[in-house]
Amino acid sequence: MTQFTDIDTPAVLIDLDRSEANLKKAQAAADAAGIALRPHIKTHKLPLFAKRQVELGAVGITVQKLGEAEVMADAGLNDLLLTFNIIGAAKRARLKALHDRVTIRTVADSAETVAGLTETFADPGHKLGVFVECDTGMGRCGVQSAQAAFDLARIIASHPGLHFAGLMTYPAAGKYREAAAWLADAKALFEAAGVDLPAITTGGTPDIGHMAEAGPATEYRPGTYIYMDRSQVAAGAATFEDCALTVLATIVSRPTENRAIIDAGSKALTSDLLGLVGHGHVVEYPDARVVGLSEEHGTIDVSACAQKPRIGDVIRIIPNHCCPVTNLFDHVHLIRDGALVETVPVAARGRVD
Amino acid sequence: MTQFTDIDTPAVLIDLDRSEANLKKAQAAADAAGIALRPHIKTHKLPLFAKRQVELGAVGITVQKLGEAEVMADAGLNDLLLTFNIIGAAKRARLKALHDRVTIRTVADSAETVAGLTETFADPGHKLGVFVECDTGMGRCGVQSAQAAFDLARIIASHPGLHFAGLMTYPAAGKYREAAAWLADAKALFEAAGVDLPAITTGGTPDIGHMAEAGPATEYRPGTYIYMDRSQVAAGAATFEDCALTVLATIVSRPTENRAIIDAGSKALTSDLLGLVGHGHVVEYPDARVVGLSEEHGTIDVSACAQKPRIGDVIRIIPNHCCPVTNLFDHVHLIRDGALVETVPVAARGRVD
Repeated sequence: MTQFTDIDTPAVLIDLDRSEANLKKAQAAADAAGIALRPHIKTHKLPLFAKRQVELGAVGITVQKLGEAEVMADAGLNDLLLTFNIIGAAKRARLKALHDRVTIRTVADSAETVAGLTETFADPGHKLGVFVECDTGMGRCGVQSAQAAFDLARIIASHPGLHFAGLMTYPAAGKYREAAAWLADAKALFEAAGVDLPAITTGGTPDIGHMAEAGPATEYRPGTYIYMDRSQVAAGAATFEDCALTVLATIVSRPTENRAIIDAGSKALTSDLLGLVGHGHVVEYPDARVVGLSEEHGTIDVSACAQKPRIGDVIRIIPNHCCPVTNLFDHVHLIRDGALVETVPVAARGRVD
Repeated sequence: MTQFTDIDTPAVLIDLDRSEANLKKAQAAADAAGIALRPHIKTHKLPLFAKRQVELGAVGITVQKLGEAEVMADAGLNDLLLTFNIIGAAKRARLKALHDRVTIRTVADSAETVAGLTETFADPGHKLGVFVECDTGMGRCGVQSAQAAFDLARIIASHPGLHFAGLMTYPAAGKYREAAAWLADAKALFEAAGVDLPAITTGGTPDIGHMAEAGPATEYRPGTYIYMDRSQVAAGAATFEDCALTVLATIVSRPTENRAIIDAGSKALTSDLLGLVGHGHVVEYPDARVVGLSEEHGTIDVSACAQKPRIGDVIRIIPNHCCPVTNLFDHVHLIRDGALVETVPVAARGRVD
């Protein structure tokens, strides 16, 4: 039986017991909160985990790219929310092909996005569901006010080929109360006008411990929760013992007493900092600090380590942000009790458009 | 004829006239400086450009990973320098397979790396060339003193299956004088002892304008110079007009007067900052500032732009660091005079080990 320490480095390891526990814990919390779970597959990019999420009770999945949707639809997932403004005839044609074979809905935050959609989706017998994307504090996409959300919903509903599906937001981390208040204001507008508001969908993992406080939201879209990472530990959403994804690396150089160099750099761990200092948590050397990354080298300060790693040792690193890490590897290794169970291709990796 | 503006986004565009000009300029400068050029293919990861570099006069290529070496050897490149300490029997077996079909040399910065190599390379009739990697100021891998370089060279030369090939360094950007002084000290040690020092190889693009001042170096290994990027412009090694690689993106949202959102985030541009503020230079809107990236969204502040982009517009972004960008895309689009010439797979993308 292959042990994880025998896998050539750098490599991504997924601890199956931990990922399964994370999935079950979140589903149980969503059930307790009375909110539907629609996990974002951008984290794992694997049909096997998307299917497992649905088996455990998720109402469907979330994707960020048409390419991800295509991979998941090919794998048999049949209820998808594409949380991205789809612009341009080429992308709309791909969306239509998906709409013709699975349940897929999308979002819009502008009349321009909606107008584009109407060029491709005009069949009253097979409407495309469109959520209004709302900026509840993230400062990214989204309409800027409850009134604007209501107005755009009315525009969507006015087109025979479109169906107003509800409100969608990705809230800023830690700002779940502000997001809930924003959404409550919007919901009040719909109620006052007697306009149906079918659903309100929100996210994400940093505030997954507060699903019950997601206000009027009916659906929650966490992604990172399946693996967790150093940023989620910093946010209080997980402990290092919850983290299912690690990057396996080898000590390739020990140029000085306190410097260790590994064969994992930004092309394995990414440069994402997410407000943190350093580039990951070393499982075997918790006092070590990953102080620098170049493309293929990681530089570790081991001055605080009582015992110091030697050339040839393998270590596991919990990255700052697990989602883009899986985008860098063609395969990940599924591990249970330290042994390799299966090596699987990251099917939706690199689906850039 | 497909114009670049018709390519679906996000996408990587390579301006062939610019990349060719960059290659020729560097080769001419190396020729004038009397230094051999051994380009690092980590930037483009494409056999076609590696071959073109050799056609123009490069003595061979540099690779950072065995997987890159395998792709390039398969494509017909036959003189490779692998500038990475190779650790472990599995990797050494792959190195041996390469050594049996092309000229490939590697580096070592420790007795441990050398001892490992001797386990696999023991044939006096087919020695493996090994450079001593020197830390001339970068603070990454490398022996820490000229004396240590000399001593490790003697250890390499003492093994029948290994050949001491010379000294290798990747100098800190802007520190070419310090690197040259370090290497000169080392060279003096070899001369004093009457020990042959076959070659001294250094890099990289930030100081490519100072190849003639690379001291005793006999070979130069630039990578980024083929495409250039925003970090090289900041370093004074290029202008924006030299930059051959851009990321094509679409404006997908204009939530506020001064905010534009594009469909290119950290999974297209990477989070690499390299000391810069912001995440890239927008060709069409030079006054715009790419202020934030999430995985699939880029946030642009267009407050300083006289004319502001509209939803559906396509823009080109010169990234901070072009090398990891090509690692995120399965294909790049080769462009001449604004028209698509060819779309090619990034053959050595994702070769993580």
